[in-house]
Amino acid sequence: MFGAIEAGGTKFVCAVGTNPDDLKLTQFPTTSPEATTASAIAFLQKQSDGELDGVGIGSFGPVDLCTASPTFGYITSTPKSGWQNYDFAGAIRTALNVPVGFDTDVNAAALGEARWGAAQSVSDFLYLTIGTGIGGGAVVNGRILHGLLHPEMGHIRIPHDFNHDPYLGYCSFHGDCLEGLASGPAMQQRWGEPPEGLPANHPAWALEAHYLALGLANWVCTLSPRLIVLGGGVMRQYWLFEMIRKDLSQLLNGYVRAKELMENLDQYVIPPGLGNRSGIIGALVLAEQAYQKQRELVSP
Amino acid sequence: MFGAIEAGGTKFVCAVGTNPDDLKLTQFPTTSPEATTASAIAFLQKQSDGELDGVGIGSFGPVDLCTASPTFGYITSTPKSGWQNYDFAGAIRTALNVPVGFDTDVNAAALGEARWGAAQSVSDFLYLTIGTGIGGGAVVNGRILHGLLHPEMGHIRIPHDFNHDPYLGYCSFHGDCLEGLASGPAMQQRWGEPPEGLPANHPAWALEAHYLALGLANWVCTLSPRLIVLGGGVMRQYWLFEMIRKDLSQLLNGYVRAKELMENLDQYVIPPGLGNRSGIIGALVLAEQAYQKQRELVSP
Repeated sequence: MFGAIEAGGTKFVCAVGTNPDDLKLTQFPTTSPEATTASAIAFLQKQSDGELDGVGIGSFGPVDLCTASPTFGYITSTPKSGWQNYDFAGAIRTALNVPVGFDTDVNAAALGEARWGAAQSVSDFLYLTIGTGIGGGAVVNGRILHGLLHPEMGHIRIPHDFNHDPYLGYCSFHGDCLEGLASGPAMQQRWGEPPEGLPANHPAWALEAHYLALGLANWVCTLSPRLIVLGGGVMRQYWLFEMIRKDLSQLLNGYVRAKELMENLDQYVIPPGLGNRSGIIGALVLAEQAYQKQRELVSP
Repeated sequence: MFGAIEAGGTKFVCAVGTNPDDLKLTQFPTTSPEATTASAIAFLQKQSDGELDGVGIGSFGPVDLCTASPTFGYITSTPKSGWQNYDFAGAIRTALNVPVGFDTDVNAAALGEARWGAAQSVSDFLYLTIGTGIGGGAVVNGRILHGLLHPEMGHIRIPHDFNHDPYLGYCSFHGDCLEGLASGPAMQQRWGEPPEGLPANHPAWALEAHYLALGLANWVCTLSPRLIVLGGGVMRQYWLFEMIRKDLSQLLNGYVRAKELMENLDQYVIPPGLGNRSGIIGALVLAEQAYQKQRELVSP
């Protein structure tokens, strides 16, 4: 039995179980690291009767994922008050005395979709969330891409026509990067309404689809994914999918000659198979991986 | 002893040998596929006395790299006259009767840099060429990224301020994608001079550095590489490196908090360790890989 934590900037989701059909779930607001972590630990202990084999954490970031680093498992330079340089994985490991798997929230979601969702047995794909922020997790040759730190896909620069859209952008680091132009808060600031308050025929959506398609076109050219899964609150406005596909097709203009992109875009840019539970279920996969890694270390 | 072919749109480089210090090299212009391939085959046979253990090809593209595909090893939809749907790997395999490794020119160059160049023992890095076109090869978790087809990194979209640079772009598919704005032919068309004819104090270089830095910033956010190697004819104007580093640092604005990006950019964005021979030496690595794969298949 495994424990899972999806740590977001506004809420924590916690789960205990073995697979998507056998999960006890709870959620509560993110407050201080000490109080929030204590709530998570209490839930995991109670629901498992102390019988956990491992815990997985998919966390908001930036986080330190370098296993050789003295601050591995920390949340590092987040703007979120109180959480800077917090030893998140260490706190869970110390309290529960089990192997702890740790990764970004979007990498966890990608793992969840790979194991039980829309990307099962897909060796190379991209999971994106478009919500309070924009983030991406990539699977390449069957493994999560980490590299130097972890991707920060929402912060790519895309064309921005100020004549058509004079909004300066929401990102405090980059202004009009993709997240700055197309995240939920950017939509709210530009239009005076949150995404869920804007009807399907509002001009907001053509602009939103265009910005997201520009991001997707760049990732198609860079990562050559076999599949793109789009999750997050903004994507719950389901009409966006078809608008994005149409725009992406125009942007690529037939250059990348794969049937998936030329004919079958409706099976190439798709919603998550696990709905809004990709992240917490991916954290369960992280727990399982940490457990298996520990077993390999102790057995000959 | 291995054979290697670096197949470019304007010239072929061929080599026979075992490593960068033991290589017989030649080059000749690219004409028809039949004539050019025949010249390559003749050189490889003569220099090896027919004793080759394998041949590697790093080719211009697009190419079909899907080993399960009936057109694996073909050059596919290239605009280059006569080369469409050409069974390149098949022609070499039939003539020489040896295992043939086949990949894009930039993936080969990345392999060369990984094995004997500037990226030795670097698990995650990016090799880019900026010349007649712009292309990239990425190594992720120690393996070349292929995905659905192969990356087409030069074709990402970046911000383009038409007031500052009214040039419409050179790419016949996308107009002002990165390749359309910053390849050698784009520079030549914009300024009326090829890159090598533009002095270091010409305004062309600040614009060129800015476009390339925008590309690099997007790839840092997407691939999180540990190292970026910049090759190709345009980069022989060595002053570009420092201009790109400065611009990249401003674009990232301290968001990606790694020492490599915050302090050591002069060791992060670097020229190839193998000069202009990354591609042909990488093709030698492809030959070696094809030979080893064949051995694994025939031995128990």
